[in-house]
Amino acid sequence: MKIPKALTKVIESFQRLPGIGPKTAQRLGYYLLHVPQSQLTDFAQGLENLKKNTVLCSICKNVSETNPCDICEDRSRDTSSILVVEQPLDVVAIERTKSHKGLYHVLHGKISPLENIGPDEIFTRELFERLDGNNGETHSANLPAGKAGASRVKEIIIATNPTMEGEATAMYISRKVNETKKEIKVTRLGMGIPTGADVEYADENTLTQALQGRREMGK
Amino acid sequence: MKIPKALTKVIESFQRLPGIGPKTAQRLGYYLLHVPQSQLTDFAQGLENLKKNTVLCSICKNVSETNPCDICEDRSRDTSSILVVEQPLDVVAIERTKSHKGLYHVLHGKISPLENIGPDEIFTRELFERLDGNNGETHSANLPAGKAGASRVKEIIIATNPTMEGEATAMYISRKVNETKKEIKVTRLGMGIPTGADVEYADENTLTQALQGRREMGK
Repeated sequence: MKIPKALTKVIESFQRLPGIGPKTAQRLGYYLLHVPQSQLTDFAQGLENLKKNTVLCSICKNVSETNPCDICEDRSRDTSSILVVEQPLDVVAIERTKSHKGLYHVLHGKISPLENIGPDEIFTRELFERLDGNNGETHSANLPAGKAGASRVKEIIIATNPTMEGEATAMYISRKVNETKKEIKVTRLGMGIPTGADVEYADENTLTQALQGRREMGK
Repeated sequence: MKIPKALTKVIESFQRLPGIGPKTAQRLGYYLLHVPQSQLTDFAQGLENLKKNTVLCSICKNVSETNPCDICEDRSRDTSSILVVEQPLDVVAIERTKSHKGLYHVLHGKISPLENIGPDEIFTRELFERLDGNNGETHSANLPAGKAGASRVKEIIIATNPTMEGEATAMYISRKVNETKKEIKVTRLGMGIPTGADVEYADENTLTQALQGRREMGK
């Protein structure tokens, strides 16, 4: 049985997305046949303009509408601390906590020798340039004082994922910073048992991390 | 933190799809930022043209590129049997079995009083018209003989889902056909334990159906 070409095309597009298998793609394709044309056009325009109407902030490399982005532009943020993440979505997660008042740096990936991704394939150099104040050369002129104020950075918080690649990336950055900028403290996001979890079911690695990261309780 | 409007728009479009929650929608939106523009344009064009380049077959109401559709046009199909399904995807599933040589009728829904969907909101009338041969009036002239050959229909196989609504739809159609067209046999898809399942874990309803639908084994 021939499925109409127009439908096959949409199904194939869905199937290229992560986490969407052939069955789900088919279901979504057929579902959209019942939807008003205006919703389809809206969806189509959104996709077409997605990359055209977004930029990477030249300072922190986060996805943004403006360059520099809102966070880098925000005078109330603490410019002495930069939190390093793998992906823009990690910034969203951390901003939701309202616990980080500093700036960000988005690597857009992690070091992964297996996938041929080295430090230069992700935005590590741009991070070091921020610390050198090199990045400020082109932009600091237009920015309020202290925005690109790279020399003032006192802490780098590394918040890459606690996976093999995330750890390797964290190690690489911390070694590089420790070598060249001794005055900057490098920290790593605390690891241990997540809120609501059971000690009983925690894996060995997590428990080891939790023990090593134990804290004295307030008296 | 402001997520760029262009990105929010795409995330919202994904979120309107069935089975895609806010987290998945966000992940898909951010994922597409890394994809080549050509893939986005391709996806967008597919969506824009999805409904423009498909029609419902005027005979069986299946989604098709041509009218009538390939199956209704296929001279080798058995025009004496019509299999009735709720959705176009059900046709795909049944065609995959290669066990039905007859024609189809797609209702595009099921009778559901709770959702205010009566027999006239789905394509039941069109089914009865096919049986009357009324539907043939406009089309049979252009069709090879026996295609709209409604008078020749000998069996209606009802393959709506074994849910409350699917059963109600099946009952409605079978009663209507039995009342008006006594010469047509109405059958329902066999119900019972699916291949590979455990009798132990089958629910009571399924087991009752399987008992009622038991068959004599070949000697």
